[in-house]
Amino acid sequence: MDFGAAQLIAFDVLDLLGAFAFGLSGALVAVRRDFDVVGIAVLACCTAFGGGLIRDVLIGDVPPAAFTDLRYLGTALLAALVVFLWHPPERVQRVPLTVVDAMGLGLYCVTGAVKAASFGLGPVPATLMGVTTAVGGGMLRDLLAGLQPSVLRRDSELYALPALAGAGAASLLLHAGVFTWWTGALAALGAFVLRLLAVRFHWSAPRALRRPEEPF
Amino acid sequence: MDFGAAQLIAFDVLDLLGAFAFGLSGALVAVRRDFDVVGIAVLACCTAFGGGLIRDVLIGDVPPAAFTDLRYLGTALLAALVVFLWHPPERVQRVPLTVVDAMGLGLYCVTGAVKAASFGLGPVPATLMGVTTAVGGGMLRDLLAGLQPSVLRRDSELYALPALAGAGAASLLLHAGVFTWWTGALAALGAFVLRLLAVRFHWSAPRALRRPEEPF
Amino acid sequence: MDFGAAQLIAFDVLDLLGAFAFGLSGALVAVRRDFDVVGIAVLACCTAFGGGLIRDVLIGDVPPAAFTDLRYLGTALLAALVVFLWHPPERVQRVPLTVVDAMGLGLYCVTGAVKAASFGLGPVPATLMGVTTAVGGGMLRDLLAGLQPSVLRRDSELYALPALAGAGAASLLLHAGVFTWWTGALAALGAFVLRLLAVRFHWSAPRALRRPEEPF
Repeated sequence: MDFGAAQLIAFDVLDLLGAFAFGLSGALVAVRRDFDVVGIAVLACCTAFGGGLIRDVLIGDVPPAAFTDLRYLGTALLAALVVFLWHPPERVQRVPLTVVDAMGLGLYCVTGAVKAASFGLGPVPATLMGVTTAVGGGMLRDLLAGLQPSVLRRDSELYALPALAGAGAASLLLHAGVFTWWTGALAALGAFVLRLLAVRFHWSAPRALRRPEEPF
Repeated sequence: MDFGAAQLIAFDVLDLLGAFAFGLSGALVAVRRDFDVVGIAVLACCTAFGGGLIRDVLIGDVPPAAFTDLRYLGTALLAALVVFLWHPPERVQRVPLTVVDAMGLGLYCVTGAVKAASFGLGPVPATLMGVTTAVGGGMLRDLLAGLQPSVLRRDSELYALPALAGAGAASLLLHAGVFTWWTGALAALGAFVLRLLAVRFHWSAPRALRRPEEPF
Repeated sequence: MDFGAAQLIAFDVLDLLGAFAFGLSGALVAVRRDFDVVGIAVLACCTAFGGGLIRDVLIGDVPPAAFTDLRYLGTALLAALVVFLWHPPERVQRVPLTVVDAMGLGLYCVTGAVKAASFGLGPVPATLMGVTTAVGGGMLRDLLAGLQPSVLRRDSELYALPALAGAGAASLLLHAGVFTWWTGALAALGAFVLRLLAVRFHWSAPRALRRPEEPF
């Protein structure tokens, strides 16, 4: 497929916003774990770049944008600096962390799917790649911080499914040739809102079916 | 080297069987950790694709088959669905988990070595790549589930060595030009049986030599 | 940029020394965690190759040197063998572990930056890649051993910053066209000494600014 200038700018802006949101999310987790300023910067970068790095390596776009385009590094370090200078006290960190993490999730599922499609992947693989981009950074953050990944946590609200919805919507928009700044942002917003609604109303996916206790 | 049609079909069938076995193994671990249906699907996919993704990225075959060939995704999700609908009670899960994990180990060590060889790697690097393919998915599964990786676990029976034997056998078969569906399946079966024998008879590798307690 | 024969040999020797030091470090952690000989070999290889693998995948040099150049495998396995046969008792392992880990850190931050530059990356991305190479293997080692990564540990002394200094110095030397065996070894030595001084004098980076306890 073929991108116009407006689509390229939309992609760039959304992708940097995603890096900033995930950078904040990584830095907030680092503060909660009482890491020092280096740990805050490292975790902000890993969360901001993790999903995009995995995407870029898997579609063969190396060296990845996060290493060659210094705006990404600057964005992640800015997020780390903001959190270093000012962050909510620990007992009220849960809400801002959830919100910025949901922003990163919504933005990256769209930009991940778009970039994969621009490298020639079909709608289904591009959707998968969008989900990978969106959940990869957060998984890496949680692994490095010694936490169970959000996407798998037992008591967790829907996390991968909003990303799947956003990435799927973006892939369909691209396939139909109507992906623009506005429709792309709407898909990201949809995933963001879906994630926040899931947290607010404790929507969670069902567990495996249990059989009545009987001999095997 | 050069593959005939029979070898390509053998590779395909063994590789998809490996994805199914590791998918079951990931899903069973997810159920044991009480993850929801999304967690079961994610862990099934990570376990089924993890080793192959690492292999494909390392040999430069991107985007990896797991993203472009939808049979892999379908296979892993089918394994997740099977375990979601029916799985043994927790106290008897150890045995089926060990068996399907050993199946994945046996199949992937062979297909990993074969694919690496088909990308031009020599026998020793291809053997290493087979071991990486075989243990990579399980390592990722254990990391994500917050468990010590099987391959490293203190009380563990031989895990990497059966994979090394199977991958080495496959590399030798390829090198000698006698790799077919049957000989490849035999190498996989050998690794599978070796792993199960190790579990059954508690074969484990020696620990580091201890010196008598004396001042350093 | 363009490498002469002396620079290529310098790169080779430093890189293999880094693999040996990180191999020792991985093997020592494995012994401390009471892993068996397979676990010692696996952890030695993961620590020795982890950073270089990430570097090679990110700059597009696949299959990575660690798989195709068997000297790397031999070096890591030799380190595992040394530790298997002889290692200090547990209560005095902290010091040798810190020293060999600092050696790996110093060597890899330089060779990582050099290799990235030789693939056409600019000074800033090459510096980042040097840091990634230096801290990647240790992070993988700690993740696999179930430990909090050194680079993030709460009570940790400077770890990423010495690597940043060494990688930055190497990038500047390359940029100025004066990178040789001697200047490269000096940059590595600088990072090594900086890391040991940080450990000796408990230099650590500041934590996030705390506000006085007041309502949010």
